[in-house]
Amino acid sequence: MVGMTNDLANTATTPVSVLGLGAMGQALAAAFLRAGHPTTVWNRTPGKDGELTARGAVRATTAQEAVKAAELVVICVVDYAAARAIMETVAGELPGRLLVNLTSDTPERARAAADWAQQHGIECLNGSIMVPVPVIGSPEALFFYSGPRAVYDKYETALKALGGRPAHVGEDHGLAAVYDMALLDYFYGAMGGLVHAFALAGADGVRAGDLAPYLDTITAIMPPIVAGTAQDIDAGHYPGEAANLAMMAAGSGHVLETAEHRGLDVGVLRSVKALADRAVARGHGADSWASIFEVLHKP
Amino acid sequence: MVGMTNDLANTATTPVSVLGLGAMGQALAAAFLRAGHPTTVWNRTPGKDGELTARGAVRATTAQEAVKAAELVVICVVDYAAARAIMETVAGELPGRLLVNLTSDTPERARAAADWAQQHGIECLNGSIMVPVPVIGSPEALFFYSGPRAVYDKYETALKALGGRPAHVGEDHGLAAVYDMALLDYFYGAMGGLVHAFALAGADGVRAGDLAPYLDTITAIMPPIVAGTAQDIDAGHYPGEAANLAMMAAGSGHVLETAEHRGLDVGVLRSVKALADRAVARGHGADSWASIFEVLHKP
Repeated sequence: MVGMTNDLANTATTPVSVLGLGAMGQALAAAFLRAGHPTTVWNRTPGKDGELTARGAVRATTAQEAVKAAELVVICVVDYAAARAIMETVAGELPGRLLVNLTSDTPERARAAADWAQQHGIECLNGSIMVPVPVIGSPEALFFYSGPRAVYDKYETALKALGGRPAHVGEDHGLAAVYDMALLDYFYGAMGGLVHAFALAGADGVRAGDLAPYLDTITAIMPPIVAGTAQDIDAGHYPGEAANLAMMAAGSGHVLETAEHRGLDVGVLRSVKALADRAVARGHGADSWASIFEVLHKP
Repeated sequence: MVGMTNDLANTATTPVSVLGLGAMGQALAAAFLRAGHPTTVWNRTPGKDGELTARGAVRATTAQEAVKAAELVVICVVDYAAARAIMETVAGELPGRLLVNLTSDTPERARAAADWAQQHGIECLNGSIMVPVPVIGSPEALFFYSGPRAVYDKYETALKALGGRPAHVGEDHGLAAVYDMALLDYFYGAMGGLVHAFALAGADGVRAGDLAPYLDTITAIMPPIVAGTAQDIDAGHYPGEAANLAMMAAGSGHVLETAEHRGLDVGVLRSVKALADRAVARGHGADSWASIFEVLHKP
């Protein structure tokens, strides 16, 4: 059982294994090695572990062999379908160890994998890696974890080898993925708007490098807007003194018209404006932008 | 002519008029007053100037009277249709003065208004106000201006009364609006994603206040991404070593699936993912996210 090695769990002597040696899996294994953990590595196809074994990792020839070598087993592969295929081959070896699934996928598939693990007597945490490969192992690297709090607490120190900012966000195994998906939701909205902004200005001869410093002023105003939007949503009311939705719906309409005039794809702008218009029609015209929260759920 | 009062233009004694006393027009007039400019104000409907006249502004009873009192005439109304209606009533009084149009609208309508002014022998600048009412007149208030550079240079000091960060972005009168629309394009993408992120996490019981600090980590990574994206776009090539589009298309697909599963509106996500997929199909899978620039123009 996990409890058997309680005295070891929070020291750098916890033996670990990493299943899956894509760029991310390699970075995870390297971070464990740097922190002094006995580290075993395995990949479905060979040839990915040269640098790791040179730095002291043990190469396992089968997933079973890798799992047997470790108390803490990390799996990080392309999606949960791939993770599940590997997990099924080592189902008999996992009980008594901790499985930490760092595969990025939807909350539903993370929960399904956790259910499968529970049915097989396997203790597991589900995690989401919120930083790119070069940041793995650094103090600022943010990871979300979900699953039993006591298990997380026991292994937190070992997991800090992977990223200095681990956050346990709840016992529900899907929550790490929920937080992950929510952050990406904001990120892809911003990234869609960003490239579109360059295309819009570029159509009138503005170089991206000339526009970029001004786009930073938008980034700079976001932290108080994030905090204020959260406050409005949790309170369920949306004071609109500073900037109201009716004005912003009109403003987004000007952007939409400008982009259309330049022959740009306007899918994102049209969707954003439609939400604002719908909220105005529901009586939120004098409220803040946050009030579009009320119309985001499909009827 | 504007040149007649050259010795006065860059001092706080330049007489100014503000046409349009909505919340923004009132803030502009108040900022001129604070800087010591003789300030005349006018609004189509009366009763908006009480605070301003108490602070020393002169109330004009007609737009003509207001224009005649000033060397620098600022107009700031709801849109260019409203601006044009006022401009036509004072077309005979404007030549020899500078008209600064701070009405927010599309580049096309800003250009049309500038063409009309030129046909009537009126010198003008078109400007865009990039900050909310409470920030007007402060050192950090960003304004874009476009139109003749020499005219802008002559009045820059006077215009700094309105905002300490004025930027002349080009001689083409539409460019201030182009920069404005581009910043709003990025802003509304981010704002759409932000509220959607709260809705997505909220569907699984996550309070907005618990998610907000982590959303700030996304905001924090944007400045280097803005700079890197601009560099890729101006160079016309998109190195994707750090994070490639194929991975990000798959990632945005997970967010889309997660949002759909929760019954959320997915218009924005579907549009963003469609762009990523289109760019991957055109061979940009190993490139950076910035390569969606190449598919933003409608065929």
